[in-house]
Amino acid sequence: MNTDRKNVIGIMGPGQNAKESEIDFAEHLGELIAEEGLVLLTGGRATGVMQAAMKGARNKGGETIGVLPGKDPHEASDHCSKVILTGMGNGRNIINVLSSDVLVFIGSGPGTVSEFGLALKEKKPAILGPGAEKLWELASAMDMPPVIFRSADALEIIEIIRRSISTRISK
Amino acid sequence: MNTDRKNVIGIMGPGQNAKESEIDFAEHLGELIAEEGLVLLTGGRATGVMQAAMKGARNKGGETIGVLPGKDPHEASDHCSKVILTGMGNGRNIINVLSSDVLVFIGSGPGTVSEFGLALKEKKPAILGPGAEKLWELASAMDMPPVIFRSADALEIIEIIRRSISTRISK
Amino acid sequence: MNTDRKNVIGIMGPGQNAKESEIDFAEHLGELIAEEGLVLLTGGRATGVMQAAMKGARNKGGETIGVLPGKDPHEASDHCSKVILTGMGNGRNIINVLSSDVLVFIGSGPGTVSEFGLALKEKKPAILGPGAEKLWELASAMDMPPVIFRSADALEIIEIIRRSISTRISK
Amino acid sequence: MNTDRKNVIGIMGPGQNAKESEIDFAEHLGELIAEEGLVLLTGGRATGVMQAAMKGARNKGGETIGVLPGKDPHEASDHCSKVILTGMGNGRNIINVLSSDVLVFIGSGPGTVSEFGLALKEKKPAILGPGAEKLWELASAMDMPPVIFRSADALEIIEIIRRSISTRISK
Repeated sequence: MNTDRKNVIGIMGPGQNAKESEIDFAEHLGELIAEEGLVLLTGGRATGVMQAAMKGARNKGGETIGVLPGKDPHEASDHCSKVILTGMGNGRNIINVLSSDVLVFIGSGPGTVSEFGLALKEKKPAILGPGAEKLWELASAMDMPPVIFRSADALEIIEIIRRSISTRISK
Repeated sequence: MNTDRKNVIGIMGPGQNAKESEIDFAEHLGELIAEEGLVLLTGGRATGVMQAAMKGARNKGGETIGVLPGKDPHEASDHCSKVILTGMGNGRNIINVLSSDVLVFIGSGPGTVSEFGLALKEKKPAILGPGAEKLWELASAMDMPPVIFRSADALEIIEIIRRSISTRISK
Repeated sequence: MNTDRKNVIGIMGPGQNAKESEIDFAEHLGELIAEEGLVLLTGGRATGVMQAAMKGARNKGGETIGVLPGKDPHEASDHCSKVILTGMGNGRNIINVLSSDVLVFIGSGPGTVSEFGLALKEKKPAILGPGAEKLWELASAMDMPPVIFRSADALEIIEIIRRSISTRISK
Repeated sequence: MNTDRKNVIGIMGPGQNAKESEIDFAEHLGELIAEEGLVLLTGGRATGVMQAAMKGARNKGGETIGVLPGKDPHEASDHCSKVILTGMGNGRNIINVLSSDVLVFIGSGPGTVSEFGLALKEKKPAILGPGAEKLWELASAMDMPPVIFRSADALEIIEIIRRSISTRISK
């Protein structure tokens, strides 16, 4: 296994319908992820939580991967340092989930909910951040709860990411 | 548009972790869907809600399409009259959603949650049946609620399906 | 394994750029496939080889599955008795290949070439019909030739299909 | 459009069945791509043309993206600096094609042929390198030939890449 490869943290959240507070949180968390030397992965579009998180990461010199629904590179946010074009619409959500070592959810639009379901299904460590609290009850009602956390504190989220990575190590 | 083509109703729900009551409800709803002359679509595997719904539909002479995650036809339930092999794992969930004119959710495992999120995203009529009630609160908290219904009564669900089809007509 | 389920034959070929002779051949082969009691699967659009093959099959009372690149049901040919909407663009080609027990290629546009490559990769029985002869040389140059045939005679193609099915039996 | 983002060059070719000369060529071309400051994208597995091309690029300090068929990160070559896990099997081939600004084909296994068909379909600039010459005749027989080149000279391929990028500019 390549020990140089950096771990990838996915931040999932709404586009156009993201709330101001979610956008601010995403940008701050993106900064912290970059400062940790981790790679940020998002849905790649130039809007909402994905755009904000990538902006934060890039401002701190971090790397960002955007996995886009369409096939037009112009749809990608300028804050993507790498762009993956899938042409698969929302079918690309599974790729966001599988390609991330840990997932953080901010807000809870329809796409976010689908990615959370896939994270549970694929047993990925998932952290419910601001605006995604309501997904907690959903998950705790399931028979076999996977590795889920919740926190509205960015530093605590980074701490959970560190621990998740050190126990799973899937680069 | 082909006026002979039958409308397709997707029933989504857990596999191995489905509850007895959910399995019974799925089988009964499958029967009613077949009696309406509608085609049933599921995730196609030989377990849980999908298997039960297709069994019900087939017992009443209905047609069933199973959209499978894998590429081995032996994974398909015997109650699939048509099998679609995707080889895309849970990436196939988007196909379940897009190929159904109306979706009914029974139970709420991880995969079900992902399909519900995708149904919201794609603005498909979605009916929350037994075991899927907890998805209601999630949806109603969203800013732009799409066409969602809830009911634990199979006959009422059929009535909602009839109305959804007559207003949307997307064969 | 479900012994009632009918085998599925995929016919792959160009859309807009199909030649007149390829369209005629596809329609005739579609008729024969229906008369054999087999299900026809195509890319589902209302043009070229796919449209013609499904028209032939439907005229003889056969069943047809169209696996579409988009998510708009209006893009499906009226000759699809079942429509699968993938929203995955040309990413859906793998589904055409995996869901067919035997594949017949008529003509050789870009999409056809991609499906032929996938058929080789997935070791599916593949028959090169009229207009697809040039794919033969390509395949025979490969180190491990899979199950490939060529024929420009519709009745002979049906005979090859029968034999392929009886030796593989993957319903 | 992000003017900092580097263009992505896809190198497609066989895995286990790659010839020695194809592997050597791929490694050398990978080196040159890195020296041009371009990003290399491949199918990501630890074998054949993909592995060799990425090894070359990494040895010259370049960046490499591996788009994998499976969901196990251990299947990725150590020479991937970024790993995209799709879980879509050969369905991921479309992502390789769409995410590359220019594609180079070395060798011609089944998967390579499928990716070449998709490159034609998506009108991507495509360069046929050593072992892929036989795809030339196939493409030139099509009615609407897209942007295809052939060359067995690595420096000339780099020159074609430069020209393709400067005329298309799709970062």
